[in-house]
Amino acid sequence: MVGGTITEKGIATRELILARAYQLAQQGGLESLSIGTVAISAGMSKSGVFAHFGSREQLQLALLDAVGGRFVEFVKAPALHEPRGLPRLRKLAERWCEWSRAHRNGCVLLSAAVEYDGRRNGPIREHVLRQQGGWRDELRRTIGLAVDAGHLRKDTDTTQLAFEIYSLMLGLHHDAGLFGYDEARDRAELALERLLASYRPGAREVRQ
Amino acid sequence: MVGGTITEKGIATRELILARAYQLAQQGGLESLSIGTVAISAGMSKSGVFAHFGSREQLQLALLDAVGGRFVEFVKAPALHEPRGLPRLRKLAERWCEWSRAHRNGCVLLSAAVEYDGRRNGPIREHVLRQQGGWRDELRRTIGLAVDAGHLRKDTDTTQLAFEIYSLMLGLHHDAGLFGYDEARDRAELALERLLASYRPGAREVRQ
Repeated sequence: MVGGTITEKGIATRELILARAYQLAQQGGLESLSIGTVAISAGMSKSGVFAHFGSREQLQLALLDAVGGRFVEFVKAPALHEPRGLPRLRKLAERWCEWSRAHRNGCVLLSAAVEYDGRRNGPIREHVLRQQGGWRDELRRTIGLAVDAGHLRKDTDTTQLAFEIYSLMLGLHHDAGLFGYDEARDRAELALERLLASYRPGAREVRQ
Repeated sequence: MVGGTITEKGIATRELILARAYQLAQQGGLESLSIGTVAISAGMSKSGVFAHFGSREQLQLALLDAVGGRFVEFVKAPALHEPRGLPRLRKLAERWCEWSRAHRNGCVLLSAAVEYDGRRNGPIREHVLRQQGGWRDELRRTIGLAVDAGHLRKDTDTTQLAFEIYSLMLGLHHDAGLFGYDEARDRAELALERLLASYRPGAREVRQ
């Protein structure tokens, strides 16, 4: 945290700024943010925003952290209450679908991955890479536990399955925006079950 | 086409404007386009651009048409040279992957689908919906021909498989931007083979 006294009011103001920044980023992406527009939206002076976030980049990074933390809390925390293996993996996917529903008007994490692809280097891209890489690792670990539990084939390529599940979630988000959430969710859920079945012990192995 | 005489020079100018608009849209999306910025980028006056595209919206629609046409030419045309069935479907996917490689610095069609999701109604969203819906139909038809040829199960849900293939292409595009194209392509190709295998005659059926 940069500047600002850590008081209840300070934390509340910081949260307010991040909430407004989130709304703006949902519309125009992280790159659309500026201290000025965020200040107007929060009904504050620019120096008021600067007292909490020393620069535009620090605001962008703090927003990514805040949303990333909320995503993990929303998706991972409930999954941890399920037994290791397919129950936990399914709960994770279910909560991820719910996140997609709640953010069908734009997910800042996903649009950041598009904004900061190979074209833009710098601290924000590094942050996005760490976040996305960390989430993929999390997914891979959850799949690995399902392998250990004997719910998925012993020779499951966890990186491959993590890619395939991630792709389905992108498909859900994409189709929800175009054709409506409910149909997209039905498609994604059926696709996930088909996918998991292809990795169950006894399923035929496919190699290229 | 709006305004402008249809002469060789007129067509060349129109192409130049669209090429510049494409570069700008790759960076900032269709919504970032304005007649003014496109004119500056093309080294023309605003009225020069207006002579070819009567409004910002007409320019945006013309750009979508041009890129959509190029996509179909690039992806579908070579596939039509392959026999109906899995060879054609595989060629379609292969060319789609190549399109993704060529546009790994941003695909205007894909970002338009994000920009004009449920939040924005109007002629551009309608156009995006028609384009995306049309491409999904195309994919579904190609899958249907593979069913007819006996390459895929008779009870294949072509809409479902089209969603699943589309999702993999989104996964490829997403991962390519973050982790590099080559690894993402390997993942996507293996995923496609696994997916197609699960729809081959003799594969176990999965229902939710």
